[in-house]
Amino acid sequence: MSEIARKAVILLSGGLDSATALAMASAAGFECFALSFRYGQRHSVELDCAQRLAKAMGAREHHIVDFDLRHFGGSALTSDVEVPKGRTMDDMDYMSADIPITYVPARNTVFLSFGLAWAEVLESFDIFIGVNALDYSGYPDCRPEYIAAFQTMANLATRSGVEGRGALTIHTPLIELTKGEIIGKGVDLGVDYAMTSSCYDPDPHGRPCGQCDSCLLRKKGFAEAGLPDPLYVKFGMGE
Amino acid sequence: MSEIARKAVILLSGGLDSATALAMASAAGFECFALSFRYGQRHSVELDCAQRLAKAMGAREHHIVDFDLRHFGGSALTSDVEVPKGRTMDDMDYMSADIPITYVPARNTVFLSFGLAWAEVLESFDIFIGVNALDYSGYPDCRPEYIAAFQTMANLATRSGVEGRGALTIHTPLIELTKGEIIGKGVDLGVDYAMTSSCYDPDPHGRPCGQCDSCLLRKKGFAEAGLPDPLYVKFGMGE
Repeated sequence: MSEIARKAVILLSGGLDSATALAMASAAGFECFALSFRYGQRHSVELDCAQRLAKAMGAREHHIVDFDLRHFGGSALTSDVEVPKGRTMDDMDYMSADIPITYVPARNTVFLSFGLAWAEVLESFDIFIGVNALDYSGYPDCRPEYIAAFQTMANLATRSGVEGRGALTIHTPLIELTKGEIIGKGVDLGVDYAMTSSCYDPDPHGRPCGQCDSCLLRKKGFAEAGLPDPLYVKFGMGE
Repeated sequence: MSEIARKAVILLSGGLDSATALAMASAAGFECFALSFRYGQRHSVELDCAQRLAKAMGAREHHIVDFDLRHFGGSALTSDVEVPKGRTMDDMDYMSADIPITYVPARNTVFLSFGLAWAEVLESFDIFIGVNALDYSGYPDCRPEYIAAFQTMANLATRSGVEGRGALTIHTPLIELTKGEIIGKGVDLGVDYAMTSSCYDPDPHGRPCGQCDSCLLRKKGFAEAGLPDPLYVKFGMGE
């Protein structure tokens, strides 16, 4: 008799990191429920990627929750502030020192809260989020101490916490990996990175700008991994 | 020179508790930004109440965030499960022992997360939520230890936490009050409870069913306070 797989909720943006997190959850034997968000991001092409990835990677279900963070403003990703472009790889050091303008207020907290709601309904005790503390240390809600505090809160917030039915774990399998290591893991697990989108400002076909911070990080990652980026190959773009 | 008022985000459902929390925040000198949610609740009449309350009580702004928790199911308030009715006041003891079927998974966590997002954009360090641990001890996300854990998490989640610009406080001015005491406070502060809606299953005009748990709690509260419920007076209903 085969064991019944444990359910896990995977936050899936459609980017490189969350696709890798989904592959890792799946490889660990979880039955995966993928969750994405349409929150007013200008790079909504990533949601098409999320849908294709969820299907291709065998997620049991995929939900997209709709809401609009643009009401609140405060980020280049959701408001009319321009996405910074044209910084060099060396400028990436800036991202550790300051909080980038592309930071969306409380975004991971909102995302994880919806993940928690779904997990509770599914009676799942495992949520995966592809945050990364190394390349994005400028984002407060990508730090290990933040994730630990969310997990503590989540275990008090829910029915299962009260009834002692099981401790919920927020899994962050990428948190200590470099972008190059993440890509290496994903390639080993068969992730097709041509299906992912990382750019903050892609064209309507999903062609990356190649110049925003997220594109630069991705380039740096593939360079570290010593691999060509299949997304660039797909669009016939130089590295 | 008058001092500049500190900004606070107030979660405003349109019910009795949150209207009182708004009055208390306002009386404490905060400039109030009211936040409501259209989340697929069957009692959406409360949102009309929230809009009228925000205006009447001088909130600086009022936002309604839209999303749909019905995707996930799991509660009588958002799915097709019937709202329990016809229990007696004595049955209210049941509500401390078990988690009611009207509990919405992770609802307060989702609401507070949006509150946190707005607070961060407003540069506010104060969020008010009208949770109550006495009458609703069956809801895991109404307990003081949950609120404390959310506050700890919130201070790690945000820009201000990283930059040390100010500690965010989750205010729960009603948490230790009985329903009767809440109503007493609100009446002292001039809250017009005829403008509030507590019923889980009101008719389209906002007339309460008088039989659901929330109606029973409200009745118990006005009885304790020794006051008639102006909502019942408005609809010409007996107590």
